[in-house]
Amino acid sequence: MTPPDMETRIAESKAFVHTFHVEPKGSGILDGLRFAVKDLIDQEGYKTSCGNPRWRDTHPVAPANAVCVDQLLYSGAVCVGKTVLDELAFGLSGENFFYGTSLNPKALDRVPGGSSSGSASAVACGVVDFALGTDTGGSVRVPASNCGIFGMRPSHGAISVAGVNPLAPSFDTVGVFAGTSEVLSRVISVLIGCDIPSEVSIGHVHFLQEPFAQCDPEVNNALQVPVDAIRQAFEGRSSETSLTSITAGSPSDLHDWYITYCEIQWAEIWSCLGPWVAETNPEFGPTTRRNFEHVRNLDRGISVKAVRRREFYYRALKKFIGPSDLICLPTTPTLAPLKGTLGVDRTVEDYYPRTLSFTSIAGIGRLPQVTLPLGNSNDIPMGLSLLASEGNDAFLLGAAQTIMKLNNP
Amino acid sequence: MTPPDMETRIAESKAFVHTFHVEPKGSGILDGLRFAVKDLIDQEGYKTSCGNPRWRDTHPVAPANAVCVDQLLYSGAVCVGKTVLDELAFGLSGENFFYGTSLNPKALDRVPGGSSSGSASAVACGVVDFALGTDTGGSVRVPASNCGIFGMRPSHGAISVAGVNPLAPSFDTVGVFAGTSEVLSRVISVLIGCDIPSEVSIGHVHFLQEPFAQCDPEVNNALQVPVDAIRQAFEGRSSETSLTSITAGSPSDLHDWYITYCEIQWAEIWSCLGPWVAETNPEFGPTTRRNFEHVRNLDRGISVKAVRRREFYYRALKKFIGPSDLICLPTTPTLAPLKGTLGVDRTVEDYYPRTLSFTSIAGIGRLPQVTLPLGNSNDIPMGLSLLASEGNDAFLLGAAQTIMKLNNP
Repeated sequence: MTPPDMETRIAESKAFVHTFHVEPKGSGILDGLRFAVKDLIDQEGYKTSCGNPRWRDTHPVAPANAVCVDQLLYSGAVCVGKTVLDELAFGLSGENFFYGTSLNPKALDRVPGGSSSGSASAVACGVVDFALGTDTGGSVRVPASNCGIFGMRPSHGAISVAGVNPLAPSFDTVGVFAGTSEVLSRVISVLIGCDIPSEVSIGHVHFLQEPFAQCDPEVNNALQVPVDAIRQAFEGRSSETSLTSITAGSPSDLHDWYITYCEIQWAEIWSCLGPWVAETNPEFGPTTRRNFEHVRNLDRGISVKAVRRREFYYRALKKFIGPSDLICLPTTPTLAPLKGTLGVDRTVEDYYPRTLSFTSIAGIGRLPQVTLPLGNSNDIPMGLSLLASEGNDAFLLGAAQTIMKLNNP
Repeated sequence: MTPPDMETRIAESKAFVHTFHVEPKGSGILDGLRFAVKDLIDQEGYKTSCGNPRWRDTHPVAPANAVCVDQLLYSGAVCVGKTVLDELAFGLSGENFFYGTSLNPKALDRVPGGSSSGSASAVACGVVDFALGTDTGGSVRVPASNCGIFGMRPSHGAISVAGVNPLAPSFDTVGVFAGTSEVLSRVISVLIGCDIPSEVSIGHVHFLQEPFAQCDPEVNNALQVPVDAIRQAFEGRSSETSLTSITAGSPSDLHDWYITYCEIQWAEIWSCLGPWVAETNPEFGPTTRRNFEHVRNLDRGISVKAVRRREFYYRALKKFIGPSDLICLPTTPTLAPLKGTLGVDRTVEDYYPRTLSFTSIAGIGRLPQVTLPLGNSNDIPMGLSLLASEGNDAFLLGAAQTIMKLNNP
């Protein structure tokens, strides 16, 4: 039974599309934990809306859970509902034309961020212990940072996406939000199928130059204390590292990474969702309509060159980051935007290009990234991100625990 | 214009669902090459049948090409048609209840193998220079071996699957068939976005013990000459290596790898295709009907444990294979089966478990694998496979060229 005050908090969060109570199918390290699932991920017996009513109405009921949901239920967790998202997961704002804007309890006048907005909100509001999201271009990392909670995007392919609606498969991942790094570790441990070390030996910490130089001043201020703590703890084993040094002298800036990411993502989105959009001609909110016009009218030849650049950057990162190294950057270049201030046309607004340029590093590199709620600008939360080498998700979570202890000794 | 004799050969191959002539959209290293596309992969303006008429009738026309098809068209290749496959790509036989069995021109009374049967057949019949397939559990490697041509499954995630219908996303890949290793290299170079070295320095060659011990005697006979040639060329740098030595002493046999692969694959297949199957209740051929009954009634709790075993095997392989090492094994444990001899119920027949146990190594390890048409048993072709470490697809193709030269000096 959900206690009455919890019901009120759930309603106030505006995070949920459905609430229910699905009992665990087994017992394990998630016993007693409550979770919510982004409504892009199948839950047996429900239609998956993908954040758009027409999608929901034109698709069947899921006869089974997504594999990732089953993994959690068989490990003892209770599923309590499905959460709001940006339409078709195509956005980073959390302002859904049909389902509204979930509450950001740490900054009431600001967006929770998206696309996994409801999952972030549900965790930040304390109505669940953790929640599943998906992260293609930042859809876990951005809302986790905005809402002041822990969020992780795993290495590409590390968590099953079966039963999760695709957006851009070369970048799609299932990610996790949690209120503590300890819960985050337990959940990822189940989903990836490995143990998380409680202590790890961290080699070198690379503070990525361009993101720290190009974020808003209040972001740098918000992160000053945790960054200084890391610098001090890793004296002689940390440095400012530029993208050009990662690409071994071949010049690149954040905009190049952003463009490379987007040119592939846009072509993939139209390949994945175009058949339904072209046949159904669904009603969309204005931002989503504009987004689909953009990907529909794309010159698809650009993706051929973008794939070559992506491969070059991917290999450069792979060669650069050692197995015990970390890359550190602000999760986003700005604080959570005020509600209603993000324009409809992302090609003329700078919020998306700036934000995606930060998040594209992990996407291009297939790297795991964790965002830690360590920053704070006049009580507005700000995430600090750590990335590790591909496949080193367990190490990254161990390292995150170490970094958290530095900041909460 | 397709010359009249080519039209006859195309018809005789029974490899195609549609034929057409889609001009290149650009010019590049594939200029002048003709290709075909497995009808699981979207081609603009066509419905994708996925090898089942009801799927075709209940899905919209693709408004765009899959990203991988666009990459080829923009690099100068001509697309001439879409090819037959096992229903929903769920099978390895190439015997499709609705679309028939494509010709295996190298062994007329035997199956071409599947699920990418028509793509393999079209290349083996010489009506295209190369063809796209998909490989989840062997659907490129098995038909390439059966039909005596080159086939490659890339590292998981290395080639975009956007616009390709999912089967089991943790293992799904887009693969390529070609008549020569040189064409194969050019095509993979475009799809992955990197150059293929014409020469590489090969470190150690591991002949995998269990597959050589457990394949049929005629498979060992068929591969004797090329295996001896490799052994001789790499004297002192090759060895017989067991699965247990790869897992650092933790005992494992091929059956463990097969079960681990299947338990994840089955759960994913029902998560991906279950919504459509449960809603539509489509007509299937008897084998496909039996397969879907199996995955529908699965105890989904087994996938939780299987994910842990997969992760253990994955990490063991990752640690074991150096960046210039190769693993060598017969592509399949048997010659291509005679037509009509594969039973309906794969849980009681041994062809599928035996074959999947060989192919599951690359699936579990996310490793690239190339099958070379080097074996021959009384004129029936047999493939020899090489695997390299994850992400080392370019090295693997360079190594394949070296191995081919040993055998055709």
